[in-house]
Amino acid sequence: MFFHRQELQFKSTPDKPDAVFARKLQEVLGGQYGEITVALQYNFQAWNAHIPGKYRDLLFGIGAEEMGHVEMLATMIAQLLEKAPLGITGDAVQDDPTVAAVVGGMDVQHAIVAGAGARAVDSNGNPWSGSYITASGNMLADFTANANAEMQGRLQVARLYHMTDDHGIRDLLSFLLARDTMHQNQWMAAAAELRAEGLEDFPVPSNFPLKKEHRPVSYEYINFSDGAAAAEGTWASGPTPDGKGEFTYVEAPGTTKTVPTPPPTHPDSRFYGTTELPNTVEKIAGAVQDKLNKE
Amino acid sequence: MFFHRQELQFKSTPDKPDAVFARKLQEVLGGQYGEITVALQYNFQAWNAHIPGKYRDLLFGIGAEEMGHVEMLATMIAQLLEKAPLGITGDAVQDDPTVAAVVGGMDVQHAIVAGAGARAVDSNGNPWSGSYITASGNMLADFTANANAEMQGRLQVARLYHMTDDHGIRDLLSFLLARDTMHQNQWMAAAAELRAEGLEDFPVPSNFPLKKEHRPVSYEYINFSDGAAAAEGTWASGPTPDGKGEFTYVEAPGTTKTVPTPPPTHPDSRFYGTTELPNTVEKIAGAVQDKLNKE
Amino acid sequence: MFFHRQELQFKSTPDKPDAVFARKLQEVLGGQYGEITVALQYNFQAWNAHIPGKYRDLLFGIGAEEMGHVEMLATMIAQLLEKAPLGITGDAVQDDPTVAAVVGGMDVQHAIVAGAGARAVDSNGNPWSGSYITASGNMLADFTANANAEMQGRLQVARLYHMTDDHGIRDLLSFLLARDTMHQNQWMAAAAELRAEGLEDFPVPSNFPLKKEHRPVSYEYINFSDGAAAAEGTWASGPTPDGKGEFTYVEAPGTTKTVPTPPPTHPDSRFYGTTELPNTVEKIAGAVQDKLNKE
Amino acid sequence: MFFHRQELQFKSTPDKPDAVFARKLQEVLGGQYGEITVALQYNFQAWNAHIPGKYRDLLFGIGAEEMGHVEMLATMIAQLLEKAPLGITGDAVQDDPTVAAVVGGMDVQHAIVAGAGARAVDSNGNPWSGSYITASGNMLADFTANANAEMQGRLQVARLYHMTDDHGIRDLLSFLLARDTMHQNQWMAAAAELRAEGLEDFPVPSNFPLKKEHRPVSYEYINFSDGAAAAEGTWASGPTPDGKGEFTYVEAPGTTKTVPTPPPTHPDSRFYGTTELPNTVEKIAGAVQDKLNKE
Amino acid sequence: MFFHRQELQFKSTPDKPDAVFARKLQEVLGGQYGEITVALQYNFQAWNAHIPGKYRDLLFGIGAEEMGHVEMLATMIAQLLEKAPLGITGDAVQDDPTVAAVVGGMDVQHAIVAGAGARAVDSNGNPWSGSYITASGNMLADFTANANAEMQGRLQVARLYHMTDDHGIRDLLSFLLARDTMHQNQWMAAAAELRAEGLEDFPVPSNFPLKKEHRPVSYEYINFSDGAAAAEGTWASGPTPDGKGEFTYVEAPGTTKTVPTPPPTHPDSRFYGTTELPNTVEKIAGAVQDKLNKE
Amino acid sequence: MFFHRQELQFKSTPDKPDAVFARKLQEVLGGQYGEITVALQYNFQAWNAHIPGKYRDLLFGIGAEEMGHVEMLATMIAQLLEKAPLGITGDAVQDDPTVAAVVGGMDVQHAIVAGAGARAVDSNGNPWSGSYITASGNMLADFTANANAEMQGRLQVARLYHMTDDHGIRDLLSFLLARDTMHQNQWMAAAAELRAEGLEDFPVPSNFPLKKEHRPVSYEYINFSDGAAAAEGTWASGPTPDGKGEFTYVEAPGTTKTVPTPPPTHPDSRFYGTTELPNTVEKIAGAVQDKLNKE
Repeated sequence: MFFHRQELQFKSTPDKPDAVFARKLQEVLGGQYGEITVALQYNFQAWNAHIPGKYRDLLFGIGAEEMGHVEMLATMIAQLLEKAPLGITGDAVQDDPTVAAVVGGMDVQHAIVAGAGARAVDSNGNPWSGSYITASGNMLADFTANANAEMQGRLQVARLYHMTDDHGIRDLLSFLLARDTMHQNQWMAAAAELRAEGLEDFPVPSNFPLKKEHRPVSYEYINFSDGAAAAEGTWASGPTPDGKGEFTYVEAPGTTKTVPTPPPTHPDSRFYGTTELPNTVEKIAGAVQDKLNKE
Repeated sequence: MFFHRQELQFKSTPDKPDAVFARKLQEVLGGQYGEITVALQYNFQAWNAHIPGKYRDLLFGIGAEEMGHVEMLATMIAQLLEKAPLGITGDAVQDDPTVAAVVGGMDVQHAIVAGAGARAVDSNGNPWSGSYITASGNMLADFTANANAEMQGRLQVARLYHMTDDHGIRDLLSFLLARDTMHQNQWMAAAAELRAEGLEDFPVPSNFPLKKEHRPVSYEYINFSDGAAAAEGTWASGPTPDGKGEFTYVEAPGTTKTVPTPPPTHPDSRFYGTTELPNTVEKIAGAVQDKLNKE
Repeated sequence: MFFHRQELQFKSTPDKPDAVFARKLQEVLGGQYGEITVALQYNFQAWNAHIPGKYRDLLFGIGAEEMGHVEMLATMIAQLLEKAPLGITGDAVQDDPTVAAVVGGMDVQHAIVAGAGARAVDSNGNPWSGSYITASGNMLADFTANANAEMQGRLQVARLYHMTDDHGIRDLLSFLLARDTMHQNQWMAAAAELRAEGLEDFPVPSNFPLKKEHRPVSYEYINFSDGAAAAEGTWASGPTPDGKGEFTYVEAPGTTKTVPTPPPTHPDSRFYGTTELPNTVEKIAGAVQDKLNKE
Repeated sequence: MFFHRQELQFKSTPDKPDAVFARKLQEVLGGQYGEITVALQYNFQAWNAHIPGKYRDLLFGIGAEEMGHVEMLATMIAQLLEKAPLGITGDAVQDDPTVAAVVGGMDVQHAIVAGAGARAVDSNGNPWSGSYITASGNMLADFTANANAEMQGRLQVARLYHMTDDHGIRDLLSFLLARDTMHQNQWMAAAAELRAEGLEDFPVPSNFPLKKEHRPVSYEYINFSDGAAAAEGTWASGPTPDGKGEFTYVEAPGTTKTVPTPPPTHPDSRFYGTTELPNTVEKIAGAVQDKLNKE
Repeated sequence: MFFHRQELQFKSTPDKPDAVFARKLQEVLGGQYGEITVALQYNFQAWNAHIPGKYRDLLFGIGAEEMGHVEMLATMIAQLLEKAPLGITGDAVQDDPTVAAVVGGMDVQHAIVAGAGARAVDSNGNPWSGSYITASGNMLADFTANANAEMQGRLQVARLYHMTDDHGIRDLLSFLLARDTMHQNQWMAAAAELRAEGLEDFPVPSNFPLKKEHRPVSYEYINFSDGAAAAEGTWASGPTPDGKGEFTYVEAPGTTKTVPTPPPTHPDSRFYGTTELPNTVEKIAGAVQDKLNKE
Repeated sequence: MFFHRQELQFKSTPDKPDAVFARKLQEVLGGQYGEITVALQYNFQAWNAHIPGKYRDLLFGIGAEEMGHVEMLATMIAQLLEKAPLGITGDAVQDDPTVAAVVGGMDVQHAIVAGAGARAVDSNGNPWSGSYITASGNMLADFTANANAEMQGRLQVARLYHMTDDHGIRDLLSFLLARDTMHQNQWMAAAAELRAEGLEDFPVPSNFPLKKEHRPVSYEYINFSDGAAAAEGTWASGPTPDGKGEFTYVEAPGTTKTVPTPPPTHPDSRFYGTTELPNTVEKIAGAVQDKLNKE
């Protein structure tokens, strides 16, 4: 169950209207790595969790906070749009190139569809998609996904920080940056804790029997490009991070054992794929049979 | 530049046809974490890279291999569909419930659209989307995304392994599992190397000045749910993984400092949003002015 | 701000596992008119509201409840999947047609992607989309959208009710049906209240000056099909619901005043659209000029 | 069957080219509530209708008109683009900031993809989606959806009206405004007629037995936010619009009867979800059995 | 303008209900190459046409017919669903594996969302998308797109023909096959006529000055795979279909002239991309400057 | 298997940065007819091919080249973005309208999401979709799709050519134009060769028995619009391109034989569609029975 309180975690008020920045801010509200993504991602991971206790509590605890971040961003966007030129005739687009540029750079659906309100879309107006979220049931994989989401998110907020000098916006962004710092740290700590407690390990999923994978290539770096420097990394020789092998390095063309491509398939002729002309007795017989089947 | 050779990295031939498994296998070909995703993700990261040398070489080297995995899966899928019942009348769906079940469980577009061929979709027929890939320019964030992709991918392949006892399919899956093991290890090694070389660190992006973020909440776990066990984790007290702070823990309701929600916005009346009735002289004057503007 | 409590509004536990029903239930979780839609729709309307007070409070009050409904459905789905056959080899799909049918009818991504967990998708596996929600800033339009969403939602839940005889599921559905009854009533009451208070009226938006619309066709039913019974409804004669006119009825072919289609456009030749051959001096001159421009 | 006549319902010619407005106009052509939506929505409702006669005739009659509105908008857009600067070098983007602003604000696919033609997309270039339409078979629900569509549509047209002072465009918009007025009235009249004739009523679907829903919460407003004014509306006390109950009001936190969240699920271990370590004899035995199954 | 008549071009009534086939039929209604696609594609091409007369008349003439095909398919689908088992409890899914298979193979949204009605989706439930259509303004390109659409469409209908032995369905399909035959022929005739009249030619667009393309590779087949048989086709030697050159053949690896990949980019440091450590005086100076800028 | 070499087929370096053009160039990288589309389309056609040898070799040979074109465009885009104003505060958007116009016209996700890198999207930021590709198994249909893709692609490149006078960009475009010329010719040659060898013919699929289609309308042009010039084309009289008939022409309204629309359907009442009131004994009995079933 969720409860709402009509307060914000942090002040979310711009110094001045800015329709173009409102559009940019949509990225961290409704984009691939925006707040809607993390809010729903953490909650779905919690709902799909198989362990009660601290890990699920953590997911719920941050998940609900992120819903509040969605709210702070939507609130900010509505305020940025409140008095900004939005393309109505009074905005004098024709006469003032600066106004024209604003109108050109804003999200026109902010005006036409939402009447100067926030939307569940990214900075290019793509609607938020359920395919953005990850909740696999495997916590080590999912906490890595979460760490990545917080890294991409903090990166985007950092970029946005340099796209404005409005103090009100920067204040909000500085708060979001700090929370992303926190959450990056938390997912890394939680991933480490899973390993320390023996619940999961690398490679994920760690309890799939290793003998069932084709071990000869489990630690072999086969380089399918011609960049020789790829052999210089710690990923090409030495012990592997999962502690179970040694990296080796081979160059693909010429050295890799390969197998011939299987022959083309010949599905039922009633799919009307293009195939060889029947040129032997057997094939003609088959074609006749197919034809009879089709009658 | 890419070159193609008509060989496969590994044998990709099933023991027998299986249209339902062909559909399931689409997940790791054209799904969110399928081979198309990693093939294009690593290449886009390489094309957007800002450093020549080993990291970019690594991206190119694995990226091209993944294109070959797309090919192995497509080849396998076409063979699984070759002789399987695909719903044509000769398949006797009406009479044999087992055949009916097969036809019910397959991807009907395999038959109708592709004529018993593979498609660029996931196991529910959702087309592959460019929004699945991540290429931000920041390598620590992106290598974490890559590690996650290989974890989710290996997890899905492991699940698929238990959904068939066809030896041909299992052979291919055991090969993919091994390569996912390798690639998980490589991205973890590469992420560690970035940090060891001082190129990036946590929190990502590490060269954003920390003083510009709102530090008082950078390491504070504010629990917005009521699961008390959340306080037991290493994410709630002790040193943070980024080595720059100490975790603290607070419960959200009551203890968090908050601010009032800003008042609702009042954009231009020509957006026809619903607002208060003008009930003072000023408001009426404003409304009249708006009305005049609209004439 | 949102807070989460680890309780549910109502019991959400099935009598027995049922993977096929779990898939169907996704419709009211992640479909066009599912709970994610209404949860985010009401919140976005609140964030975009221009009036403080009861209307916005109502939006926030129901919006947070709907988030809890998302949770109840996700919880139910995870339980329905917990022990159900999900296509792993132990499920004996090959031997038992009933199991095969279950596996055929389930959402395969429930198993492959979510490991027996709920997902942010509809019953066909389409990811939830931000384009499902409506938040225009105009409350009479939006409350009508909300009433519709609750009607479509209750209709789908009613249909689902007849697709199972599991008492646990039916209990949850009976709760959701009751809440949809409540919310239909609330949005209708709120729409009526907006009109009673003079804040909005029909046609929406009511404060757009009617004299600016082309009034001669504002109440004329022009029938573009040949179904004569269309003239029998209260929409074809008598007073209009907005209280501002009288319906009239005309049949389209022959009686409607029309205008000729404008001539085709001739954009810049450098778009290489297909157009007439230049056959007069002027046209040739123009073409030569265009050609020169292109050099 | 549909027939086309090369005429328009109303003059659709702008005074002057305007590529930026052409882009904005795409919203009411190919957006969520654009003319493609209503044209197909009304036709699908007619094709799915279960009653012959006036209601279906009404759907067909308006559905075909809306196809003509799609045409009028496409025609207008092509003309707006005909002579407008579309980013070709002759447009002198570099030298004239106003031209640059136009090119910045237009839909670049209008030029690159359509060669100065209209497209089946919204004002942000999102392709029209079949998920925009609603056709449930229940006419009271669907007519409410239709009323909403006409309200949102008229609202967007009204906003567009204020974004130009081109008389030709405004003429077309004034025509569309009037037709939206008509159609809002018609769907409201038709919804009322369904109720008057006893075919449907609130709550939708009205013939689902009310005793099967959990009646104790059918008229109870549980406020999950802390906005006290929500209790002031007619939706919180007094008779309900469906005439079948009395609204009551409760505040959620503390007063709502709730149930504990069910324990986490434990699906088959071959999905490799993260779960507790086996720490009792029974669990270990189960794990061993699972392991054996996997061999 | 469009007019509707409540008649069908051809009988569209099945012998018996079949929910699984109803789902399959959605492909040619709402799929990539379904009737909605061609109906809107031809109309958009007509609206974007630059020549009055026969070509545009042809587009309008077929476009309106295709709208009628949408109607015939929707009508057929509703009838196929009318009495079919749709998963309600009376359907005895549990007891009868055949019924279970039907329910497994149907589109569950047909029941839950549309109440046994047709939908604007393909056979996997993906909503129809505006991105399916092509209307570029260049008629030779677009008529080729149209020919392709009719080929893919006829191919799919032919496959569907073999997936049923219901005479009513087959009758409708035999009609659609014939119309697709007609339309394939028409678009091929129209493409030939464009060339005969000198309006367009190959390569499209034919009036782009050939000297502006890099002619040395205009007719050179560079084989980037190792299939030697590719050299045997008429596409590898001899005159080219556009009548303007001679095909030549080279094998890519080793023989193609190539250029080095440009060095990686170094965008502004405030995007926080990962880059080399500054290791020279100039770089350090630059970094300092960047840092100052960021303050 | 695919191999990558760190070279480009052709020089891909602009004279100067241009963020707006970088966005436009995304169309031919990640749009409906961009290089990702053709690269994957040709490869999927090869993987789904049913004939070994020259046709499949051709598909592989061009497919791998197109992957290299994706790379050239991504490389170009990253360079165009390298030093361009991307909306960071140092870009002085406020003061310089030209800079503002650039920032307005660019893809903001280039900066926020990709940190000045290329993305898998089109020029409006829509992510690339697997639904763009066609691989049906029928080579005559698919080669026609390929010819169309190369025509649309060359048309878009030609338009882009006129949108810049940067010599570096134009050089790359002139190379792509030439390759599109080549590939148009190749697919036309390959389609002709399929026919010459008797493998496929018109109408596609040519081996579907013509007697099973409804031949009376196979060559009849039924004009559903009122453009009389449609009768003047070679598509309205004379021999058909498939060599199997004669075109005839009829005008639709009045002359076409039609059938009445079937009566509306009446599915199970538990779908709660709106239907007639029961007004006869039989109907009431049925309703009672339905009601009992529902208990």
